[in-house]
Amino acid sequence: MKKVAIGIDIGGTNTAIGVVDKEGNVMVKDNLPTPTHGDIDKYIDDLTVAINELIKSVKLLNEDSEILGIGIGAPNGNYYNGTIEYAPNLEFKGVVPFVKLLKNNFSELKALALTNDANAAAIGEMIYGGAKDMKNFVMYTLGTGVGSGLVVNGELVYGHDGFAGECGHTMLIPGGRLCGCGTHGHLEAYCSAPGMKRTAFELLAYYNATDSLLADKSFIEMDSKMIFDAAEKGDEIAKEVFKVTGDYLGQGLADTVHHLSPEAIFLFGGPTAAGDLIFEPTKEAMEEHLLPIFKDKVKILPSKLKAGDAAIVGASALVWKELE
Amino acid sequence: MKKVAIGIDIGGTNTAIGVVDKEGNVMVKDNLPTPTHGDIDKYIDDLTVAINELIKSVKLLNEDSEILGIGIGAPNGNYYNGTIEYAPNLEFKGVVPFVKLLKNNFSELKALALTNDANAAAIGEMIYGGAKDMKNFVMYTLGTGVGSGLVVNGELVYGHDGFAGECGHTMLIPGGRLCGCGTHGHLEAYCSAPGMKRTAFELLAYYNATDSLLADKSFIEMDSKMIFDAAEKGDEIAKEVFKVTGDYLGQGLADTVHHLSPEAIFLFGGPTAAGDLIFEPTKEAMEEHLLPIFKDKVKILPSKLKAGDAAIVGASALVWKELE
Repeated sequence: MKKVAIGIDIGGTNTAIGVVDKEGNVMVKDNLPTPTHGDIDKYIDDLTVAINELIKSVKLLNEDSEILGIGIGAPNGNYYNGTIEYAPNLEFKGVVPFVKLLKNNFSELKALALTNDANAAAIGEMIYGGAKDMKNFVMYTLGTGVGSGLVVNGELVYGHDGFAGECGHTMLIPGGRLCGCGTHGHLEAYCSAPGMKRTAFELLAYYNATDSLLADKSFIEMDSKMIFDAAEKGDEIAKEVFKVTGDYLGQGLADTVHHLSPEAIFLFGGPTAAGDLIFEPTKEAMEEHLLPIFKDKVKILPSKLKAGDAAIVGASALVWKELE
Repeated sequence: MKKVAIGIDIGGTNTAIGVVDKEGNVMVKDNLPTPTHGDIDKYIDDLTVAINELIKSVKLLNEDSEILGIGIGAPNGNYYNGTIEYAPNLEFKGVVPFVKLLKNNFSELKALALTNDANAAAIGEMIYGGAKDMKNFVMYTLGTGVGSGLVVNGELVYGHDGFAGECGHTMLIPGGRLCGCGTHGHLEAYCSAPGMKRTAFELLAYYNATDSLLADKSFIEMDSKMIFDAAEKGDEIAKEVFKVTGDYLGQGLADTVHHLSPEAIFLFGGPTAAGDLIFEPTKEAMEEHLLPIFKDKVKILPSKLKAGDAAIVGASALVWKELE
């Protein structure tokens, strides 16, 4: 029997599904739109059809496959209750008992679990990735927002209510930039991909940098990939965006270290593709902010989850964790 | 047999020792100076004599007493190694293998453990105090500095290296006040007892408040008790010190909630004697900084450890925790 797990990543516009083996390889995968109609029962039906199709495909590949369970990563996902609660970017309003609804159709599976996407990524790192031998580490996911998953004594920290690990909304600059959550100055407003664009626009304005490669892009046009490309070509503004973003992120990571003293902090997501451009200033700034007892102890590492499939793979990892 | 535990609190000038029962009552206690000579062997000898005297006293009180172990709270105490490492306020330099040295003289005891004082206070709250039924909570100790102890899934968070829980050194105001650790803007520089004094001096200066009850005190003279007394008499500056301190502390606590989502945060130490004066603005500011999913969920509570004996009692709690 080849044991496999299903991972589902629910995003604002797209739901990705895949069947993943114990080594973290995606065997088959599929996509369906995350509906905007808000009809949860219809969505569960569509999802059930898609999952059953995938199970069929994987059994064609390997007759002996045993599907152990389904792991789900979703915004505002609550591990304790199996619910998605008041997710701002989803059309399902209020508290959706997602695991319960899906269990009606997959009652034979051994494990069905749900958490938010950054927590799923942290568990993915622990099961398949660079944190296999770590008991205390932290995952930061840098994308449209900044998510985080905390692992203490080998267990994900869910906190009292199941929502722990929202480090993107810790305070970086009191009274600073408006954050997507409505408050000012949160880390996410500086260290997400849109945060980097905002930094680029501030620097263009500050230096009046009409000669920058970024100077001909509108606010809607620019993205973090363009900033990376410009930095690679030696553009001073673009290079400074990475330096400043690293300074911001390093300050935030130091606060996390002062809470949890992890062995490593993993960074995941688009901006991390820039490698040393972002890792070096981040590490330097973090060290600068640390108490002497923590200096030169905490590694900052790139996630080992493969970028394209990471969300599915991370979600599937919940299943193995449940069965441990 | 009446089972009891010994608690030792090592401070910069004084070492307090006590024998504590399972209900958290201090049966007998004693003090000795924390030596400034830096001779650790001599100190261990003196401490051993004092501990043996206390054991004799408690056996006179109750012949049936069984001493289970010794718990030690010390600055920069490392739980994993039983060491005191580079403590800035102690004369013992480098890494002192404290538990090992003491064990030579008390090898018959079942448990010997050491951690820092705020961690000990958190365990004290869990064993004897207001956190008996809590699995996820945080302790903030407000005194000369600001310490913290984090509890996740019923276990104290020691982190990878044994030093986790230094929330006093998270960033509150980037580029702000000089902190005792040499960095600028840490929470401790604002929310400790000296931090409150610094706020009072800033406010006196800002308002040119010659009519304040605090206006005739020098920087050396003033302490947080004077600020409390003036606030009780209706002094506007003193009242604003508490309001501003609560604003600062609430911002910091929100960052901790965004990491760990605890059931409650306990506040311990001198400034908390002011009750609502400090708890109300702290709660209000914390709520203001929280993401919607965390609002109205996290209690801010006064520690139930008795102020005078809390350090001994907290340290002794380590013994019961070890034997669980």
